[in-house]
Amino acid sequence: MTIEGKAERRPARIRLGMVGGGIGAFIGAVHRIAARLDDRFELVAGALSSTPERSRKSGAALGLDPKRIYADFREMAASESRLDDGIEAVAVVTPNDSHYAIAREFLQRGIHVICDKPLTSTLADAKRLAKLVEKSDALFVLTHNYTGYPMVRHARELVKAGALGEIRVVQVEYAQDWLAEPLERTGQKQAAWRTDPERSGAGGATGDIGTHAYNLAEFVTGLALDALAADVHTFVKGRKLDDNAHVLLRYKGGAKGMLWCSQVAVGKENGLKLRVYGTQGGLEWAQEDPNYLEYFELGEPRRRITRSGAGAGAAAARMTRTPSGHPEGYLEGFANIYCEAAAAINAKKSGARLDPGVLYPSVNDGVKGVAFVEACVASSRRNGRWVKV
Amino acid sequence: MTIEGKAERRPARIRLGMVGGGIGAFIGAVHRIAARLDDRFELVAGALSSTPERSRKSGAALGLDPKRIYADFREMAASESRLDDGIEAVAVVTPNDSHYAIAREFLQRGIHVICDKPLTSTLADAKRLAKLVEKSDALFVLTHNYTGYPMVRHARELVKAGALGEIRVVQVEYAQDWLAEPLERTGQKQAAWRTDPERSGAGGATGDIGTHAYNLAEFVTGLALDALAADVHTFVKGRKLDDNAHVLLRYKGGAKGMLWCSQVAVGKENGLKLRVYGTQGGLEWAQEDPNYLEYFELGEPRRRITRSGAGAGAAAARMTRTPSGHPEGYLEGFANIYCEAAAAINAKKSGARLDPGVLYPSVNDGVKGVAFVEACVASSRRNGRWVKV
Amino acid sequence: MTIEGKAERRPARIRLGMVGGGIGAFIGAVHRIAARLDDRFELVAGALSSTPERSRKSGAALGLDPKRIYADFREMAASESRLDDGIEAVAVVTPNDSHYAIAREFLQRGIHVICDKPLTSTLADAKRLAKLVEKSDALFVLTHNYTGYPMVRHARELVKAGALGEIRVVQVEYAQDWLAEPLERTGQKQAAWRTDPERSGAGGATGDIGTHAYNLAEFVTGLALDALAADVHTFVKGRKLDDNAHVLLRYKGGAKGMLWCSQVAVGKENGLKLRVYGTQGGLEWAQEDPNYLEYFELGEPRRRITRSGAGAGAAAARMTRTPSGHPEGYLEGFANIYCEAAAAINAKKSGARLDPGVLYPSVNDGVKGVAFVEACVASSRRNGRWVKV
Amino acid sequence: MTIEGKAERRPARIRLGMVGGGIGAFIGAVHRIAARLDDRFELVAGALSSTPERSRKSGAALGLDPKRIYADFREMAASESRLDDGIEAVAVVTPNDSHYAIAREFLQRGIHVICDKPLTSTLADAKRLAKLVEKSDALFVLTHNYTGYPMVRHARELVKAGALGEIRVVQVEYAQDWLAEPLERTGQKQAAWRTDPERSGAGGATGDIGTHAYNLAEFVTGLALDALAADVHTFVKGRKLDDNAHVLLRYKGGAKGMLWCSQVAVGKENGLKLRVYGTQGGLEWAQEDPNYLEYFELGEPRRRITRSGAGAGAAAARMTRTPSGHPEGYLEGFANIYCEAAAAINAKKSGARLDPGVLYPSVNDGVKGVAFVEACVASSRRNGRWVKV
Repeated sequence: MTIEGKAERRPARIRLGMVGGGIGAFIGAVHRIAARLDDRFELVAGALSSTPERSRKSGAALGLDPKRIYADFREMAASESRLDDGIEAVAVVTPNDSHYAIAREFLQRGIHVICDKPLTSTLADAKRLAKLVEKSDALFVLTHNYTGYPMVRHARELVKAGALGEIRVVQVEYAQDWLAEPLERTGQKQAAWRTDPERSGAGGATGDIGTHAYNLAEFVTGLALDALAADVHTFVKGRKLDDNAHVLLRYKGGAKGMLWCSQVAVGKENGLKLRVYGTQGGLEWAQEDPNYLEYFELGEPRRRITRSGAGAGAAAARMTRTPSGHPEGYLEGFANIYCEAAAAINAKKSGARLDPGVLYPSVNDGVKGVAFVEACVASSRRNGRWVKV
Repeated sequence: MTIEGKAERRPARIRLGMVGGGIGAFIGAVHRIAARLDDRFELVAGALSSTPERSRKSGAALGLDPKRIYADFREMAASESRLDDGIEAVAVVTPNDSHYAIAREFLQRGIHVICDKPLTSTLADAKRLAKLVEKSDALFVLTHNYTGYPMVRHARELVKAGALGEIRVVQVEYAQDWLAEPLERTGQKQAAWRTDPERSGAGGATGDIGTHAYNLAEFVTGLALDALAADVHTFVKGRKLDDNAHVLLRYKGGAKGMLWCSQVAVGKENGLKLRVYGTQGGLEWAQEDPNYLEYFELGEPRRRITRSGAGAGAAAARMTRTPSGHPEGYLEGFANIYCEAAAAINAKKSGARLDPGVLYPSVNDGVKGVAFVEACVASSRRNGRWVKV
Repeated sequence: MTIEGKAERRPARIRLGMVGGGIGAFIGAVHRIAARLDDRFELVAGALSSTPERSRKSGAALGLDPKRIYADFREMAASESRLDDGIEAVAVVTPNDSHYAIAREFLQRGIHVICDKPLTSTLADAKRLAKLVEKSDALFVLTHNYTGYPMVRHARELVKAGALGEIRVVQVEYAQDWLAEPLERTGQKQAAWRTDPERSGAGGATGDIGTHAYNLAEFVTGLALDALAADVHTFVKGRKLDDNAHVLLRYKGGAKGMLWCSQVAVGKENGLKLRVYGTQGGLEWAQEDPNYLEYFELGEPRRRITRSGAGAGAAAARMTRTPSGHPEGYLEGFANIYCEAAAAINAKKSGARLDPGVLYPSVNDGVKGVAFVEACVASSRRNGRWVKV
Repeated sequence: MTIEGKAERRPARIRLGMVGGGIGAFIGAVHRIAARLDDRFELVAGALSSTPERSRKSGAALGLDPKRIYADFREMAASESRLDDGIEAVAVVTPNDSHYAIAREFLQRGIHVICDKPLTSTLADAKRLAKLVEKSDALFVLTHNYTGYPMVRHARELVKAGALGEIRVVQVEYAQDWLAEPLERTGQKQAAWRTDPERSGAGGATGDIGTHAYNLAEFVTGLALDALAADVHTFVKGRKLDDNAHVLLRYKGGAKGMLWCSQVAVGKENGLKLRVYGTQGGLEWAQEDPNYLEYFELGEPRRRITRSGAGAGAAAARMTRTPSGHPEGYLEGFANIYCEAAAAINAKKSGARLDPGVLYPSVNDGVKGVAFVEACVASSRRNGRWVKV
């Protein structure tokens, strides 16, 4: 019960607004649970849909005060910033192409932004957004939620502590099958915008899940990607964005890697998997079984480190709520990002020193993610030529 | 996103109080997260500790209104029942020996009770409590939380639908290792009361986890235990209650089984595992990997059914929030019991018909659990003679 | 390549005969492969079937010299013992009820016996056979083949070395499903004799596989069973022997355990599994994934020790042929028993000191196995009363 | 017991010679066991080492007739071809650079050749050898032994039967860690020649294990590789050949893939793994757990097909000896190639029609493997440009 248990006295809940995430959306509901799970945030306002009517209905369903259900994010930003008890932070859970404009509106008013990934639909927007964040007093948190898993934190610590020696090989993949058929033609909302270049940007699978894989590999290894060579492809006829990509990776310092992302791999549900091998050790982690980290020390039998179990250190312990053997999952990992955001927001508010263990994906991680997508597409257009990232 | 997504308009949050669960407690924090996760409850009052000072501190840490932090559950029941916006339900998360007295206080005032297991520390108390519930207008929900896992629900449906044919063999076990050494002597609070017959009752491991295993087997199979023969043992010297039990089971109708519970099995974290074999099929489920259900049909390759994946039916879908491959865990399973409680409470409040899919462990399940513990102890005292349950 | 690689100069192949194992038999072919695998034996004679015609055909199919294909084991024993190059050892792979008479015939002539398990169909025969072995100059090897697996050997070494501390709990099971339906009524030969008390003895599943489980637990733990309480049952109507048994175990020295054997557990193929927990550690091994041994040290992450991998010691290395990651299986484990037999036979022949690492199940293990079966049946008849073994 | 059991009358054992495989070698001993396991071959002659003295010692240790232990493969070919009972087939288990010269010597004399992989150390040799085979009356079998696993055979059948629909993605990898450190500098014989371009050819990991991975993918999918783009690398300083390679694959017909081979992936033992995804299904198989094949049908729960279990068809059944749950492994898979070789040799000998199920890797597969290695190296030298294979 670390997350709750440590708090001697919890600060007041942070007032949260949400843009997007109306009825029928997927990730909005995830953000709401994540915000609520550890009682750090209270959802008090929303512009939940692109149409006023849906927004109103969605807000009502969530029990929001009707006065704080907005037809439009601009209206929401303007109104809330005038309230004494206006929102302190906003969760942005709309399609990628709107992230920039929405985030700008809130950042300019000093409202912290918790934004879904990928950062934006274009690299130009991403860079603009990074500049805005730099100038703003408000915080910007990107929900690369997989970095919130305790065993991912522990993996990162193992690498930092030198347990793997010098890293040589990084194998990362993110395979799903939900787009194995042209689901977007059935009117399924998630599939529709994710395969639409207008809303998603240059990347399909690369943007939606490839960015997660790329980010996770950097988060754990601490390595920076130098260049990539990609074979990006669309298997489903008529689909406008890629649904599969094979990418060769070269990291600064000499490590090599491979990234595979696919949304047409029949049988894979949400198969994000990272494997790292160094001169002294290796590690393997799979998102679908997130409470386990396989750790290989050269010349020793493999060890399974479990969340809250023997061998899991402080970085993992910070991010867990339950003893070992009581599995935590996707929502808890997501909530951990919200906990980190809350810690940062509260430190800022109180002027207290931020716990140095606090760690969340930043706007710069977001810029790198969009750059990764555009590099994949660029390399693939040039028949797999190596492209600097 | 089934749980949230289905609600067109969510009813107001149920006002919840809590008895027990102060700073340093384990299960109280779990109940709070479970209550909060799906936004069905709001914690507004508490008598969180057996000492007023600790209770006050714990309540403050949780951000409770100081007026609604009580030194004592009796005071809380009396005061809250006089408030217009007093609590509608109370979570009881104290050691077993106090459940009866606490529950009585609230049931008598028409306040619903959500109570941790095992029901009570004696069978006499359990039966008295069952009578109180029968007479009360308030609901009583026992948090045998493992019945809240989606794949457990699906397992039950498979059995009900006849997929296993006539059940022959039930193998259930719950193995941990946290009491492999005399942890209770270190002052660890959880270990102290769980090994103290005054507070726990006649059973140690049998009461704490054996009841879960017994309950889970009945929940999934729909079978009623007829008799058992037990070899109950205490391995750690000086411990006052059992820390390991081997139990032979005979179900009404002819199925046979085995139950093993242990808190000294080095290497086991929270190893609750159920396996059922019938004339036409078999199934296996393990709590530590709860998103998977292994299903065997006679003469067919084994199938792995995943939460929200292909083959998982409506009963599982009711209890999930995320798509397949996005693992849910212990807290979500626990929250599902709170969702079921909320559904029942809200139906009662509004006079609406209760969704027939709503299912939660009742006071009668609790009585059976305590009877199971006492039967284990009685059989073991008579050197393993078969005892009717 | 340990087994072959170590031999500087291999002794001549041991001349082997076989009783039973004709066309259509299962275990006879396994014995032949096991004998051949490491080139220690050469099959040169056989009385392969109970009818002369089938025996002849079977011998021809195996390419035996027609003069050394016998209609009858007595004839074979008599003839072979008169030959200069007669068989030195005989493999007995007939149903249980004939083991005693066959073994006697060969032992009396100084021919070593490698006999399938269980030892005999009655405890009286078993004891008589043990006496014969004691008096004979010939060796007697019982093919409790699962003791030949390298990781089983390593498990035994871990226990001997004290890695588990004092053993508290032994969980062993052997579950199959091939008799979930009345296969014996279809004329299937294996099913027919294994469910026939005349040929198998008092135990069905208990004899056929329960003895393996019982033997494996003793082999690994070094513990001696003191008493048991059993619930032995026949689920398939009309079947004459048990097809499922639940057994409580008490070992000398205070360890407790459970044994489950079943041939009606739908979905289980050949599920022999042993788990042992002591004061300092635990271990788990499953026959279907035999190259892995899970080892738990108190307070440490679990380790997976692999055959030929890091952490696998000398006892395992003696029994392996390939590097780690090159899986060995059932036949190799079986062949290891033959290797041990060969080592013992060759040492005897040459008068050399036997390598102290050589280890094979003896006639006494066989007596204990039959006693175990009879104790299970006796306990169950007395409704699960504890019975000394 | 399919392999043995089906034979009504087994043909006489094929007389086998061996070149290479003396004391201390690895793969030679594997070939000997594989040849012996099913009693189809008898080793009667050998030129087991490059030095006469070692050859003599090795032959003696194996119990060969001293007259048939040769100092040199040329002498052996010449002598044996003059004998009435000279060898009918020869196993070639030397380093790659000698395969061509050795095979030629035997093929020219009509002696069948069973040759270890990769085929040769240069593509030129490979093509020359293919021509020799074409002209020879003798058979040539390449021991890409992983194609002998029953579940690999079943995987191939599933693809052929259309169970996967049109194949889109092939992910294949072969990761080991035995060369994570400069083992070749310790004098370890296996490491020495495998990292020596003189003896191995242009590829290190690519040649030793990459060829297996490439071959397995083609064997199962039936696809032909069209082009590849590779990043081949040597991580261990001073090593002369690659120890890691990342390869992008494009198959004829449009499927895409990735191949990773590594000998420096700490923690991996012999991690050959194939995953294939098509429009209608997917499959996954891992060499270290070879008795399982995971099969995904679009919209159905995943199925685990087990060797000899439900759902495993005739192609798998041909290649198994034991019932399901009795694991077979590396040696049995290797022996299956020898069984196929024996079937082909015996059919040729007797003039009988060859069972159409017989399937073994041919010299052409070998040519393709060497071409694959050279293409990897060529692509990598051109910084990952796509190269036609």
